[in-house]
Amino acid sequence: MSTYEAGQYDVIVVGAGHAGVEAAYAAAKRGAKTLMLTMNLDMIAFMPCNPSIGGPAKGIVVREIDALGGLMGKVIDKTYIQMRMLNTGKGPAVRALRAQADKPLYIQEMKKALEQESNITLRQGMVEKLVIEDGKCQGVITETKALYRAKSVIITTGTFMRGRVIIGDISYESGPNNQRASVKLAENLEELGFELVRFKTGTPPRVINHSIDYSKTEIQPGDENPQHFSYETTEAITDQIPCWLTYTNENTHNIINENLGLSAMYSGMIKGTGPRYCPSIEDKIVRFHDKPRHQIFLEPEGRNTEEVYVQGLSTSLPEYVQREILRSIPGLEEAEIMRAGYAIEYDAVVPTQLWPTLEVKNVEGVFTAGQINGTSGYEEAAGQGIMAGINAAAKALNKDTLILDRSQAYIGVLIDDLVTKGTNEPYRLLTSRAEYRLLLRHDNADLRLTDIGYKLGLISEERYQRFEEKKRLIEEEKQRLQEIRLKPTEQLQSLMEQIGGTRLKDGILAYDLLKRPEVTYDIIDQVCPPELDLADDVKEQVEIQIKYQGYIVKSNQQVDRMKKMENKLIPDNIDYDAISGIATEAREKLKKVRPLSVAQASRIAGVNPADVSILLVYIEQGNVAKVSNE
Amino acid sequence: MSTYEAGQYDVIVVGAGHAGVEAAYAAAKRGAKTLMLTMNLDMIAFMPCNPSIGGPAKGIVVREIDALGGLMGKVIDKTYIQMRMLNTGKGPAVRALRAQADKPLYIQEMKKALEQESNITLRQGMVEKLVIEDGKCQGVITETKALYRAKSVIITTGTFMRGRVIIGDISYESGPNNQRASVKLAENLEELGFELVRFKTGTPPRVINHSIDYSKTEIQPGDENPQHFSYETTEAITDQIPCWLTYTNENTHNIINENLGLSAMYSGMIKGTGPRYCPSIEDKIVRFHDKPRHQIFLEPEGRNTEEVYVQGLSTSLPEYVQREILRSIPGLEEAEIMRAGYAIEYDAVVPTQLWPTLEVKNVEGVFTAGQINGTSGYEEAAGQGIMAGINAAAKALNKDTLILDRSQAYIGVLIDDLVTKGTNEPYRLLTSRAEYRLLLRHDNADLRLTDIGYKLGLISEERYQRFEEKKRLIEEEKQRLQEIRLKPTEQLQSLMEQIGGTRLKDGILAYDLLKRPEVTYDIIDQVCPPELDLADDVKEQVEIQIKYQGYIVKSNQQVDRMKKMENKLIPDNIDYDAISGIATEAREKLKKVRPLSVAQASRIAGVNPADVSILLVYIEQGNVAKVSNE
Ligand SMILES: Cc1cc2nc3c(=O)[nH]c(=O)nc-3n(C[C@H](O)[C@H](O)[C@H](O)COP(=O)(O)OP(=O)(O)OC[C@H]3O[C@@H](n4cnc5c(N)ncnc54)[C@H](O)[C@@H]3O)c2cc1C
Ligand SMILES: Cc1cc2nc3c(=O)[nH]c(=O)nc-3n(C[C@H](O)[C@H](O)[C@H](O)COP(=O)(O)OP(=O)(O)OC[C@H]3O[C@@H](n4cnc5c(N)ncnc54)[C@H](O)[C@@H]3O)c2cc1C
Repeated sequence: MSTYEAGQYDVIVVGAGHAGVEAAYAAAKRGAKTLMLTMNLDMIAFMPCNPSIGGPAKGIVVREIDALGGLMGKVIDKTYIQMRMLNTGKGPAVRALRAQADKPLYIQEMKKALEQESNITLRQGMVEKLVIEDGKCQGVITETKALYRAKSVIITTGTFMRGRVIIGDISYESGPNNQRASVKLAENLEELGFELVRFKTGTPPRVINHSIDYSKTEIQPGDENPQHFSYETTEAITDQIPCWLTYTNENTHNIINENLGLSAMYSGMIKGTGPRYCPSIEDKIVRFHDKPRHQIFLEPEGRNTEEVYVQGLSTSLPEYVQREILRSIPGLEEAEIMRAGYAIEYDAVVPTQLWPTLEVKNVEGVFTAGQINGTSGYEEAAGQGIMAGINAAAKALNKDTLILDRSQAYIGVLIDDLVTKGTNEPYRLLTSRAEYRLLLRHDNADLRLTDIGYKLGLISEERYQRFEEKKRLIEEEKQRLQEIRLKPTEQLQSLMEQIGGTRLKDGILAYDLLKRPEVTYDIIDQVCPPELDLADDVKEQVEIQIKYQGYIVKSNQQVDRMKKMENKLIPDNIDYDAISGIATEAREKLKKVRPLSVAQASRIAGVNPADVSILLVYIEQGNVAKVSNE
Repeated sequence: MSTYEAGQYDVIVVGAGHAGVEAAYAAAKRGAKTLMLTMNLDMIAFMPCNPSIGGPAKGIVVREIDALGGLMGKVIDKTYIQMRMLNTGKGPAVRALRAQADKPLYIQEMKKALEQESNITLRQGMVEKLVIEDGKCQGVITETKALYRAKSVIITTGTFMRGRVIIGDISYESGPNNQRASVKLAENLEELGFELVRFKTGTPPRVINHSIDYSKTEIQPGDENPQHFSYETTEAITDQIPCWLTYTNENTHNIINENLGLSAMYSGMIKGTGPRYCPSIEDKIVRFHDKPRHQIFLEPEGRNTEEVYVQGLSTSLPEYVQREILRSIPGLEEAEIMRAGYAIEYDAVVPTQLWPTLEVKNVEGVFTAGQINGTSGYEEAAGQGIMAGINAAAKALNKDTLILDRSQAYIGVLIDDLVTKGTNEPYRLLTSRAEYRLLLRHDNADLRLTDIGYKLGLISEERYQRFEEKKRLIEEEKQRLQEIRLKPTEQLQSLMEQIGGTRLKDGILAYDLLKRPEVTYDIIDQVCPPELDLADDVKEQVEIQIKYQGYIVKSNQQVDRMKKMENKLIPDNIDYDAISGIATEAREKLKKVRPLSVAQASRIAGVNPADVSILLVYIEQGNVAKVSNE
């Protein structure tokens, strides 16, 4: 069966999940003629698991995507049913926004956003093969034998590759949610020499609203004044919908323990490795066996549907056990399952095969992004998607590539972890993975990344001007506060007492006053307000930057040190076998990962400080240059 | 692998397409505890082809479904983007309503309607097997080995059974729109002795809105005062969206002719029989080769999407030819395809295996409805669905079954045709299939069927009271017009002249005046208005019933004659082999179809009037009874 020439593009994106949509949009915005091929146009950016976006670390990724000019933040802001700022009582580094999404509406809005981008051609199609010539990507071939050509191809096929659904002792070939699995493409990647690994993930049952007795649960409403993910969102959704909280109990745990042998996880049915940080309920019971109860959140799947997601109850136990488990939980005694929970096993690409641009090392022009790279989560997928889109367009159009470092963005941490350390299980982003947490805040994503997004063409001129204005206002206000010396008037002293602070001994700079932990910008607004009232986000920035100045400075010094190592680039043509003294394990790892810098080399598991020193000396002595000149 | 007991229901519906949703809803409303199993809960009542509901004959079916208490009319009334009454210039028998649907919204609203019906349990699941014991249905088994028990099972799997998609010389296993095919269930039906047949249908490409040059096409707006399908709808959707009309031309036809050899239809790839009345474009070119052009309608797939359906261009030609064809059409010169057209082949059940209740003759308790019975079209599917739902509930709950005869409803015509004559190709309802067209009107569906729906429990008390009131007003008004004698006043004479009628010679009953073709109820409103203003639908009824009285009476006489034969029931235990004189072909057909009445027998192709006479005599002589008494 012969193929036909179906068109020439700059970039082709395979898959329209959370990675794919960002990839296509970013590539298109950079000016690349982009073709997006996906199995089912009615399931664009479908959420196969929880109906929520954001949360610790993940929420900050959404802000970063937005600061770079991506879609996720804008679309969830249009489609949330509930919005909450988490950890408001804690420091700014751990604050995070989380939204409950209206799943069907999210699909619609995402589809529309892509449809309206004129550089994107959106097309339903199943990709079966990459076309590779001389190690370089030429395009893809679909099930219908269409040959689409492009210099860059981004594969974002999520959990579809050789997908197998597993429930108890039953297993069958299937993509998520009873969609088709993607088998031929997986076989093709294997033929092309991709190293694949088998991972698994799982999802809980969904139940119907009217079968829940909410009186036995606790209400979890949205914030009264919802904040937003996108720096472009101006209007809030006013009619939010609550979630509900209930708990497992001893009875639940007994049922699970009794049936543990039937769980696909424990019976040996599942060969793939599951996500440690999104464990199934059976995992939780086994690993935390002394915990008397686990939280179960009941989350509506949308405004216009009665389906309710049972967060916390991910499982691959047989359906009848799922029912028993559910019915042991207060409020769910009569619960009727609409979709059963299941686990899915799938092929992922070992991510150390990738450059930090997400290009595959051995196949020029092929990029991979999303769950296919061994991650888990919509935001992790989207974060990789936008980067792959930017870099695939760069490849096709001979533009600059973009690599974010670990001090610039959680996205940088994520990708660096993947390509440097690889992962033995579905990788999830956690705040603890970032060494510069105080710099990678929810509130300053725009300050960190908008400049980049603008230079790439992903941020509009108008938005950029607004951003510049915000920056100017912040700097001016910080300056102003440095110039105002406040006298210890009675008014001020009693204000201090009111907020539980100590009295001032002397006059003080407004700037220094704001450094005190108990003083918020409100106080400034009372004692020395600026001439023109400032926007909330400007006030917030001024307060955080001043209050945490000391820590921020320290973090920045660490970053500088790291940067020095980051700047010590390792030449492409280095021959690790020629370096004597490096331990064997380190040598193997270095040859596999091919780090771009000494800093990256130092982060590889198995490469010890001693190895790094030897490497450093070797490079600084110019040994590599010699080799290549011979 | 063993099954587990997953629950006991009265009725199980397999599939949630247009047949399935009506079946489940009707069964539930009759009081049956109903389980609905479908492959993908996100694609309930998905429209795999045209985004429209209604049209000649089909539109009347939607009204009939609504009059019986079904869903289709209500849901399309909530989700249309455009509504048009067709054939307004013609007689009331051919008037028909057609709506353009918002596809994603239709899915949402249909899903919600089912979710909110407390007798329905909606569950995602793939059915693989029927459980039959002693020729009686016991339930179904799913892919996950859940065994659900019920006395009645309705199979409504549409085009999914052993679905194969075909485009040019490519073919692969797939359900519609890249969904999974349903293979195991088809194999199981075969094992159970079902006679299956291979049919095919096709769909045109979809293109993206911004690639169309509408200036080269003609606008097709919706009606200014849209009418509705449901007798319950009170509010109109005001912001309608237009469709657009363009045409194929010689160039288009040349492209198709040149590539005919590549069409799956003509290359022998397709073994299934296609629908004569929804032909592919290549079919149209071949069959009507002297037609210089064919209409092509450009129909938006929804309010919130840029996808546009290209009505009239259904094809299984290779993708690149589809592109060439499109681009030869004015307005589509730059068209970008979002989904390619394709043909799909699938297994259908030979419908002569069914009783008129849609129960399978040889497997008690199993019902089939929709495209699986050899039909084509959403409305045909929905019409069967509601009947199967009513009768499956009857079976499970020992209630009365319902068979509509050919004079009561298009649905009656459809089912009688299927079970009596069978079909050699996907069957589509046409007005020409009905012998009592003047009785089966759009406007009187409620008068024909609401009583039935009410008795079945599908129509609410409140709606029924409104209906009774409407009937009363119609009768009173007809009565009143019989009692008013109008004098030939100058005012009336000049009114007659104005509307192009002849002058009155004498006084005339208002009733008789309204019989004149040129006189509408408006005239009555001017010359002898009722005390209280009447609703439009009452006026319409009064006018039609009076104006067409002669024809209606004649039709009713025919119906009476037919009913006499319909009432001559053929006993269950008749032994056709014992009747001498019947032609061999007739005997075989009678044994296969097992008609319930002499009338039904007379409609079987191959059963001639002579055979009917012999049969009639045989029955009237009480021969059957004798046989059974021996
Ligand atoms: C059952 C399940 C449970 C999960 N549980 C969790 C959880 O608890 N926590 C969590 O954080 N994350 C969870 N996830 C992960 C989360 O859904 C994914 O991380 C996220 O959707 C990945 O996005 P993606 O874009 O990489 O892939 P996907 O969203 O899976 O998108 C893949 C896309 O590729 C398309 N595609 C596939 N093959 C082809 C092909 N050959 N040709 C064309 N198109 C193709 C598909 O149609 C789809 O559009 C779960 C996922 C599943 C399936
Ligand atoms: C490509 C294509 C082109 C068409 N073109 C036309 C046309 O031009 N004109 C026209 O009038 N009609 C056309 N149709 C037909 C129209 O779409 C159908 O008549 C209508 O959708 C039939 O409704 P249904 O309920 O019988 O089946 P469907 O709407 O197909 O629904 C079948 C349901 O069964 C479910 N299902 C299948 N197998 C299983 C299983 N084993 N277990 C559980 N669930 C299962 C599916 O998920 C789905 O919900 C076309 C259909 C297709 C696919």
